[in-house]
Amino acid sequence: MQRTQEMTSVQPDWEKFYPRPISEKIPFFSKDGRVYDCLFAQQLNRDLLTLLFRTADRLREVTQHKDGADYVSGLLSDKRAMLYFAQPSTRTFMSFLNAAHILGVKTSEIRDSSTSSEVKGETPEDTVRTFSSYVDMIIMRHPTPGFVEKTAWLMNRTGRPVPIISGGSGKDQHPTQALLDVYTLYRSFNGDIDNKHIVMVGDLKRGRTVRSLSYLMKNYNKMSLSFVSPKEFKMEADILDFLKRHNIPYQETEDFKGVLKTADAIYMTRIQDEHDKAGESKKVDYSPFYFRQENLKDIKKTCVILHPLPRRHEIEVSVDDDPRAVFWRQERNGMWARAALMAYIFGVDGKIR
Amino acid sequence: MQRTQEMTSVQPDWEKFYPRPISEKIPFFSKDGRVYDCLFAQQLNRDLLTLLFRTADRLREVTQHKDGADYVSGLLSDKRAMLYFAQPSTRTFMSFLNAAHILGVKTSEIRDSSTSSEVKGETPEDTVRTFSSYVDMIIMRHPTPGFVEKTAWLMNRTGRPVPIISGGSGKDQHPTQALLDVYTLYRSFNGDIDNKHIVMVGDLKRGRTVRSLSYLMKNYNKMSLSFVSPKEFKMEADILDFLKRHNIPYQETEDFKGVLKTADAIYMTRIQDEHDKAGESKKVDYSPFYFRQENLKDIKKTCVILHPLPRRHEIEVSVDDDPRAVFWRQERNGMWARAALMAYIFGVDGKIR
Amino acid sequence: MQRTQEMTSVQPDWEKFYPRPISEKIPFFSKDGRVYDCLFAQQLNRDLLTLLFRTADRLREVTQHKDGADYVSGLLSDKRAMLYFAQPSTRTFMSFLNAAHILGVKTSEIRDSSTSSEVKGETPEDTVRTFSSYVDMIIMRHPTPGFVEKTAWLMNRTGRPVPIISGGSGKDQHPTQALLDVYTLYRSFNGDIDNKHIVMVGDLKRGRTVRSLSYLMKNYNKMSLSFVSPKEFKMEADILDFLKRHNIPYQETEDFKGVLKTADAIYMTRIQDEHDKAGESKKVDYSPFYFRQENLKDIKKTCVILHPLPRRHEIEVSVDDDPRAVFWRQERNGMWARAALMAYIFGVDGKIR
Repeated sequence: MQRTQEMTSVQPDWEKFYPRPISEKIPFFSKDGRVYDCLFAQQLNRDLLTLLFRTADRLREVTQHKDGADYVSGLLSDKRAMLYFAQPSTRTFMSFLNAAHILGVKTSEIRDSSTSSEVKGETPEDTVRTFSSYVDMIIMRHPTPGFVEKTAWLMNRTGRPVPIISGGSGKDQHPTQALLDVYTLYRSFNGDIDNKHIVMVGDLKRGRTVRSLSYLMKNYNKMSLSFVSPKEFKMEADILDFLKRHNIPYQETEDFKGVLKTADAIYMTRIQDEHDKAGESKKVDYSPFYFRQENLKDIKKTCVILHPLPRRHEIEVSVDDDPRAVFWRQERNGMWARAALMAYIFGVDGKIR
Repeated sequence: MQRTQEMTSVQPDWEKFYPRPISEKIPFFSKDGRVYDCLFAQQLNRDLLTLLFRTADRLREVTQHKDGADYVSGLLSDKRAMLYFAQPSTRTFMSFLNAAHILGVKTSEIRDSSTSSEVKGETPEDTVRTFSSYVDMIIMRHPTPGFVEKTAWLMNRTGRPVPIISGGSGKDQHPTQALLDVYTLYRSFNGDIDNKHIVMVGDLKRGRTVRSLSYLMKNYNKMSLSFVSPKEFKMEADILDFLKRHNIPYQETEDFKGVLKTADAIYMTRIQDEHDKAGESKKVDYSPFYFRQENLKDIKKTCVILHPLPRRHEIEVSVDDDPRAVFWRQERNGMWARAALMAYIFGVDGKIR
Repeated sequence: MQRTQEMTSVQPDWEKFYPRPISEKIPFFSKDGRVYDCLFAQQLNRDLLTLLFRTADRLREVTQHKDGADYVSGLLSDKRAMLYFAQPSTRTFMSFLNAAHILGVKTSEIRDSSTSSEVKGETPEDTVRTFSSYVDMIIMRHPTPGFVEKTAWLMNRTGRPVPIISGGSGKDQHPTQALLDVYTLYRSFNGDIDNKHIVMVGDLKRGRTVRSLSYLMKNYNKMSLSFVSPKEFKMEADILDFLKRHNIPYQETEDFKGVLKTADAIYMTRIQDEHDKAGESKKVDYSPFYFRQENLKDIKKTCVILHPLPRRHEIEVSVDDDPRAVFWRQERNGMWARAALMAYIFGVDGKIR
């Protein structure tokens, strides 16, 4: 896991590094041709996704019996991870924590936004370097845009780097959410994601999951996308441009019911009113974009319904009992996909597959 | 651990289910003739109590040596439990946590009353279902009456139920406290609880431990009970009725000193002023119901003094040094009894005994 | 680990015990000639320090490979420790936690200043006794002077004592910080601490680390000390008296730059303004006592720079890249030294060396 001196010596200053396009930055967060720090959905190409999905599938299979579970939890019994969540998160936090436990990784937790050292005037950079002193990996969520990336960048300058996995950074990046979303498609479609029609519904402007998912569709062939949203919360232009460049057909519509019929997957999202600047969410009627019991009759028998959760009213609770509602499985997929990612970064994924 | 489809398909609505008598509800929280979700003291019948006590006794014996401790902590090394305590609790929380560690169960903790998802508008039901996604058991305390039971009920409707153990629910149910209280009697009386005079002292009106303990006395033969309390905090009528129906003789008295002489066990409690509606606790002189150093000369040589802790002034600290003061042992018994319960629910109790 | 009845029976009252000189109290916190409770830097004599350093060195060596790490984490797999930090502390807490994980000790955490039982009117003494019920060791930090010591004293009166390790008590004692500071000297000087010139810089009046470190210098031969501080924050008279009594030469100076040239180790500290009574820190110009990039040219090639961290501006960040800046290694040394101490107290240090 030691990064070579050569790499660190050619590293540019942070101020020059940060604004570069992600594609240029990815090599710096890689080692020996593998992802070392997981920071961007863009790091997840089709080969890596397939490898992680197979690892995750195998993990859940092997751990169904105690012998297998004990084998798996012995693979990384010498490793310790820090979960540093400066922003609260039940779901992401708990799924990473239990992913670590599955692999036998010992865990330390910082779940508070304020640590005592910040009180004592320490810089965030020193705080994170401190955490790294005691562990072999840091899994972190941070509200400051770019801070998770900066941590990885800083670590890679030191003589004792540890890999960083982003559990959500600012408004944009949440790569393991993207990972689990595509993993859920993979499992729902029996491993064949190509040639599907994906419908994304809701607050597409401010939801980072739909943005990442759109991006990752370039890894698959003959996909088509439909974006269903109130006109105030349409998908942003940068993603639409991206789709055009990659020849991925898409349509934008407010006709929720009409688009359901041909959907292979429906990705529901809640309104992201925590990003409101002046209560704009309250002015929007979100109810035309709810999935209700009555909509179940309109969708294909093979169609699946996803949601990153938590939900409010976007999906009626009675829908949960339909076998096509896979969002609870999707949540659990997150744990397995994250376990696969950790195994991969520590280089024991081959021992699982 | 998969519940059969038959069971779930006949399940009534929650609103109809909840008001039923506990005795009618118990089967729903059982599986293959064993308790699956531990929610009510009423689930603990004499056979189960004896089985759990023997398991607990054996656990402490076996774990005295490292070989035995390692054997025991390998029994459930493939299991993960969530401790979800929406109300703070040092004692119950820590004893469950360490019980899990004794058995090798990996643990996740939610100790806050507020989770981030509640902030995001998620229902409590969705929150708990999320927790269940990542683990094999949920141990929970919740202030809302019936919510722990509702969680178990909800879980049992899903395709992936996990057992629920109550760590205290609302004002009424705290079954593992009852379990450890009777376990302490069992150990204090060398396994022979029958034919004893139990004296309960203090705020009997609002203390759920004395209520549960009274209830469980029906499992034993020829018991007699004395209730010693200020007149404002007498034992409630429903328990007295229960005792009458089961022919368990009892007396109510304010004569603390008089009743001590014939006691086989004295169960002390603190005033439950957190349940005050208008400062009524302050108007009561609680000091006549304190156990003091001088009372030690009045009790039998074989009598034991219990207290669910925490205490305030009900028991003088100097009493702690008397061998008949067993409340510190009682506290530790809680850890062993809870470990026995978890082992039982996961079906490995036989491997311990 | 059972303390003999003889010991406890001769124990004086706390009020008489507490004011005694530490040297008189040390035997009470020992067992079979070994430290049992680690409370005072004064318990760390040269023999014990050397033994702990060798254990720590061996621990890091052995755990570099998975086989060794698994061996070490099996040594105390039957033990459980409670980390009770009534004052927040990221660094000390995390290094103890991960030290425990290295040794396979299971951990429970109380990181809040308020526990629910305190809310319910429990005394701090009862609270700590409760914690001890569930575990085999308590590692604790507490703001109340003497409370950590009192806990150890109380435990040793009970029939089931557990060892107490102080993670910082009041303003004075933080023995494991002293341990890791001297361990860092030991490693920096290849095991030969004798005959060195140690320069301590900053707020010497209120920093407990420089006080403890000064004290421990009596364990080594031909040491000399320089104290560099603003005149408002000079080293206190009791330490200077101690040095005189033990014939350890020292000088006090404000000439930071002048004293650097002959330093073998420079111990930097931040201003301790959390101990301000009336904003006195703001009136002091602390900047003459900063170590800057330009100072690196003034120090010996073999000189090392320490800092207990967290830092503010006392050391310029660019200094971190110099190999003589050992404060990040010092931080990590804390984890290994604490692991060695825990192994020693549980009596498995011999199995590591």
